[in-house]
Amino acid sequence: MANLSTFEARLAALEQQASDAETKSTTFWLLFNGTLVFFMQCGFGMLEAGTVSAKSTQNIMLKNLFDASLACLAWWAVGHGLAYEGGSGFIGFEPGLSFFSHGLEDNSAADWAFFWFQFTFAAASATIVSGAVAERTQLNAYVIFSACITCLIYPVVVHWVWSDDGWLSRSNKDAFLGGVLDFAGSGVVHLTGGVAGLCGAIVVGPRDGRFDPEHKIPMPLPGHSSVLQVLGTFILWTGWYGFNMGSTLDLSNAEAGRAGRIAVCTTLAASSGGAVAVCINHWLSPADDWDVSAMCSGILAGLVSITAGCSSIPTWAAVIHGSIGGLVFTFASRLVLKCKIDDPLDAFAVHGACGAWGVIAASLFSKEEYVNIRPHSRDGRGLFHGGVELFGAAVICVIVVTAWTAALSFTIFLLLAKAGRLRAVEQHAGPLERMDQSTHVSGPYIPARQRANAPVAATWDTPQ
Amino acid sequence: MANLSTFEARLAALEQQASDAETKSTTFWLLFNGTLVFFMQCGFGMLEAGTVSAKSTQNIMLKNLFDASLACLAWWAVGHGLAYEGGSGFIGFEPGLSFFSHGLEDNSAADWAFFWFQFTFAAASATIVSGAVAERTQLNAYVIFSACITCLIYPVVVHWVWSDDGWLSRSNKDAFLGGVLDFAGSGVVHLTGGVAGLCGAIVVGPRDGRFDPEHKIPMPLPGHSSVLQVLGTFILWTGWYGFNMGSTLDLSNAEAGRAGRIAVCTTLAASSGGAVAVCINHWLSPADDWDVSAMCSGILAGLVSITAGCSSIPTWAAVIHGSIGGLVFTFASRLVLKCKIDDPLDAFAVHGACGAWGVIAASLFSKEEYVNIRPHSRDGRGLFHGGVELFGAAVICVIVVTAWTAALSFTIFLLLAKAGRLRAVEQHAGPLERMDQSTHVSGPYIPARQRANAPVAATWDTPQ
Amino acid sequence: MANLSTFEARLAALEQQASDAETKSTTFWLLFNGTLVFFMQCGFGMLEAGTVSAKSTQNIMLKNLFDASLACLAWWAVGHGLAYEGGSGFIGFEPGLSFFSHGLEDNSAADWAFFWFQFTFAAASATIVSGAVAERTQLNAYVIFSACITCLIYPVVVHWVWSDDGWLSRSNKDAFLGGVLDFAGSGVVHLTGGVAGLCGAIVVGPRDGRFDPEHKIPMPLPGHSSVLQVLGTFILWTGWYGFNMGSTLDLSNAEAGRAGRIAVCTTLAASSGGAVAVCINHWLSPADDWDVSAMCSGILAGLVSITAGCSSIPTWAAVIHGSIGGLVFTFASRLVLKCKIDDPLDAFAVHGACGAWGVIAASLFSKEEYVNIRPHSRDGRGLFHGGVELFGAAVICVIVVTAWTAALSFTIFLLLAKAGRLRAVEQHAGPLERMDQSTHVSGPYIPARQRANAPVAATWDTPQ
Repeated sequence: MANLSTFEARLAALEQQASDAETKSTTFWLLFNGTLVFFMQCGFGMLEAGTVSAKSTQNIMLKNLFDASLACLAWWAVGHGLAYEGGSGFIGFEPGLSFFSHGLEDNSAADWAFFWFQFTFAAASATIVSGAVAERTQLNAYVIFSACITCLIYPVVVHWVWSDDGWLSRSNKDAFLGGVLDFAGSGVVHLTGGVAGLCGAIVVGPRDGRFDPEHKIPMPLPGHSSVLQVLGTFILWTGWYGFNMGSTLDLSNAEAGRAGRIAVCTTLAASSGGAVAVCINHWLSPADDWDVSAMCSGILAGLVSITAGCSSIPTWAAVIHGSIGGLVFTFASRLVLKCKIDDPLDAFAVHGACGAWGVIAASLFSKEEYVNIRPHSRDGRGLFHGGVELFGAAVICVIVVTAWTAALSFTIFLLLAKAGRLRAVEQHAGPLERMDQSTHVSGPYIPARQRANAPVAATWDTPQ
Repeated sequence: MANLSTFEARLAALEQQASDAETKSTTFWLLFNGTLVFFMQCGFGMLEAGTVSAKSTQNIMLKNLFDASLACLAWWAVGHGLAYEGGSGFIGFEPGLSFFSHGLEDNSAADWAFFWFQFTFAAASATIVSGAVAERTQLNAYVIFSACITCLIYPVVVHWVWSDDGWLSRSNKDAFLGGVLDFAGSGVVHLTGGVAGLCGAIVVGPRDGRFDPEHKIPMPLPGHSSVLQVLGTFILWTGWYGFNMGSTLDLSNAEAGRAGRIAVCTTLAASSGGAVAVCINHWLSPADDWDVSAMCSGILAGLVSITAGCSSIPTWAAVIHGSIGGLVFTFASRLVLKCKIDDPLDAFAVHGACGAWGVIAASLFSKEEYVNIRPHSRDGRGLFHGGVELFGAAVICVIVVTAWTAALSFTIFLLLAKAGRLRAVEQHAGPLERMDQSTHVSGPYIPARQRANAPVAATWDTPQ
Repeated sequence: MANLSTFEARLAALEQQASDAETKSTTFWLLFNGTLVFFMQCGFGMLEAGTVSAKSTQNIMLKNLFDASLACLAWWAVGHGLAYEGGSGFIGFEPGLSFFSHGLEDNSAADWAFFWFQFTFAAASATIVSGAVAERTQLNAYVIFSACITCLIYPVVVHWVWSDDGWLSRSNKDAFLGGVLDFAGSGVVHLTGGVAGLCGAIVVGPRDGRFDPEHKIPMPLPGHSSVLQVLGTFILWTGWYGFNMGSTLDLSNAEAGRAGRIAVCTTLAASSGGAVAVCINHWLSPADDWDVSAMCSGILAGLVSITAGCSSIPTWAAVIHGSIGGLVFTFASRLVLKCKIDDPLDAFAVHGACGAWGVIAASLFSKEEYVNIRPHSRDGRGLFHGGVELFGAAVICVIVVTAWTAALSFTIFLLLAKAGRLRAVEQHAGPLERMDQSTHVSGPYIPARQRANAPVAATWDTPQ
């Protein structure tokens, strides 16, 4: 009988080990996926570098580096607390816990990994804006807006949709209409970033040379390197697996089952989006062009479109998500241009319009047995499967996120414009002057007085 | 005694958890490695962009994006079913299960991850071809061939060697000669891709300017950016760890043991291949050149050479695999050129010739205690360790895969050529005209009528 | 009662599985992180390519490829044995075990993964040097030095600080002052690489055109592509997560808890370092420049600064590590230039100076409850928390590592210089001639006699 007490101890030890193993695999899972999402910063950077003109690359690179840096500090100092720590249905706040990762200081492994994973998302949301206002915005203005979106605009949306208390969150059993189904953030991350970008593009105005002098027709202002665009696109595509798979947030049995399907659906949507966009562009273009840039944007459009529903739709629906995403992007891009808005990276068409489509599509195509994605959430049924509530929540989400983001973004950009701090003074001329010398030389430190006197540095900065 | 029934329940729960944990770690392992393999698409793209002339970059980028996209859709729709679902020894087929991932719809976690992991391999095989036919092939033709290889040529080879029913598979206990040892696909992926590429290069003919007018001697047609070549090579090298380690297919004890050794052997072979290739090239070249491009290709040659044997050879043999791989590449590359075949990226020399060498080498150097890599496989003994059967299977594999791939590839390319759809009409001139303007401008959408009237866009596309 | 013996067997099986699971997760963890660290080779390559002039890119790329290749072979043949296998407090050596991974041949999974993880670190250390001697060093000389650092200089430092027997190792309970706290290698990897680079830069002398003819004032010699700099920086930043997180060396409960916090601290330090460096540079520069290059270096400076302490400091201290790292870099860089030393990539300022600061900072800011990082180590208390011993060990470590590295590096570089094998004969002129033709054409093999007669190949190699 002595054995029995030994058995008891050994069983208890094994049970502890099994529980620890869960925590560790969740930690590892979040760190793996977070690394991929962080790497998307590199993808955004390369995509933007390739899409702007050669002389704007230093400027856009600087903005990207600032983005990544400030987003981190802002999320640590303020954002995470507002997004996740207690609070009301509107915004999170818990005195003494919320800020500077204070509540985490000695907490468990998975909490830190979760914190970091969430930071990488915040950084992605902020970066989207840099593309929309590229080539004509002051660095200071951009940095201020970037801090605002990471500290306030984005965390509030996260709180609504993903926190336990949010008024639209499926983790909140009292949520409005049961909450919206936005698994990895078509709405939370991309719609927010895309709408903010559009507001910025409207307020700052088009680049010089984007429309002809009478502002009637758009002029060609092509990006300077399709290789960089493709490099950025492939890096983003790779990183997106982390974005979507990691949003399972753990590796429990149910979530591991999802993760594999998420990878397949993500790939199918990207492929369909790219193929549809490049083909439409080819058919609509009398010159019979096959446009690399359209394919890149189409792939990203497909990825944005699948982000909300990646965990809850069958594979055939992923092809539909992506294909219609490719269409949505193409027409949104043309519409923006028709409205005389200059959005150099199509940030709104890709992230805003397809983000909205992604949220709607997820509510339409989700399979009932796949949907129950977070604890406490009610079973949802897609519209095509009989559920109107889910569809309603999706529409509400799109409207409210758009309104919130637009209201704050316009305010901030207009204040900056009024203060004369928004538009960069030195304007760029037309496309014919692309190889002029960049004014900022890069490289090791050179005392300024030498720099001024130095022979003109023929810096053909970056691929031209 | 009441305790005993509780114990029973707790034990059963723990056993279930342990079994779930295996599934989850396998899922995670495949998703991690699959992500690395997917990233190789980016590596292939950058390597090709750097190796072609500047004006061909848009075209080759478009092909790479199409590759990745179509391979995904084709593998989902057709390829996976033909490769893995039941069927005969020659080809897989299971009505109602095979296509559009139908058999997986509600299956277990690891199945989806396995499906996705296999897709990333199919995409790699298809991409190899794009290098061989670069700079002179119509997009349509390439897309058609790309679909054929992913839907038929490659899945059949996979079925032979890796499925449970294949006539050359070590998982099939009735396999011919016990089956071939091709752990991660020197033969299945690289030989197939390399041979298909060679067929394409032969049928489409050399680039204009590759050989002098009398077609006697090759002319220099160097790539336009060694930085992009190196970027591509490092990305491919990094991704190759996923390729080789992930081919353990699970993280059981035995396979985890292999995984670490695979990483070491993969690194040693890549290093040896690169060092040998660049040194031979240096010694053979009167100009005393150290050629970056030769080193990149040598590294890839080493990686291809280790792919079949990475799990079953000692580390010293990895150095031999890689070194001889470097030699095989160098001489295969020269031989191809002597035959007046223009293979811009040395797709055949790197993937075809070294793929064949890799399969042969695995049969020669494998250690008996490392070999038993898949369930049901017989113990194999390398030739140097007394087993002729394994060597025979390797030779048969090389011959049959080459014959199958060449037969179908030639047929398809010849049909395309006959239809006048293969060779691109606009030919490129010699190396002196490298900085001419690209005809396809990239960037945001520009209405075609404006585009036509627009001032000439001085797009120096991509690094020049 | 029959049940009891069944229980016994089932319990034993479960305990075995749990122990196996630990090994497997450690293996997977090391392979994941090792892959990230290996990818840093690509980051170093791109950063260097962007920072040198366009015509030097082929040369620097070749050095990077040689680095990665030779480091692997050298670490396998010699380095790992000297670093980790038994031996005295000064150097490791165990006859019959140490070399060519002999001791590992049939060992456990995690051993191979550990071996490979350590190799990726050795390669990082060697690569740092290539930046300091860029654009003016013979390939042969660089290759010889690279082998020396991987075979001797670096492994000895590793043995001191990280092996179980090292005289400064916290795993050695008899270590001097209890051993130094250098978690992931601010001292071991970066200080070693940075000091070796500085020695090389001193002996080989400045690039032509770096200082004006009277050698009084530095002349501008900016890098040729800020896009490549940023690409390299983002890749390095991403890879650094592997560097720091992987240095937990396993995924036990305690270490998994650290891993998440390490990711957060690493991010905060990188962000702070970049922000501080670019702002100081802006304030010190009369031209009101915002310098991309300064921000890239600042980010790397922040990362180097956190490497030693990433696992044992609170998050607010990570901001201090990084911010002061940004300052240390800025002033070290200017000091080096004042001393008329030409270190094109600021290898000393980033890796050497900040490496030293990182080791010191870790001893100052570590929290007592976080410190106990390796078995057998004594509890340490940071200076600000009452422990002077830890601070003393840090100072000793910086002094001794610097002395050891400098002594050997100077000797080797001076011997190479004496033999006339160090400095490249063909010197580069000033910045105005950046677009001249590269002498080494890359691309597929071209018989040398054709190459010589060929029309001048207008290879505008790499982004210009």
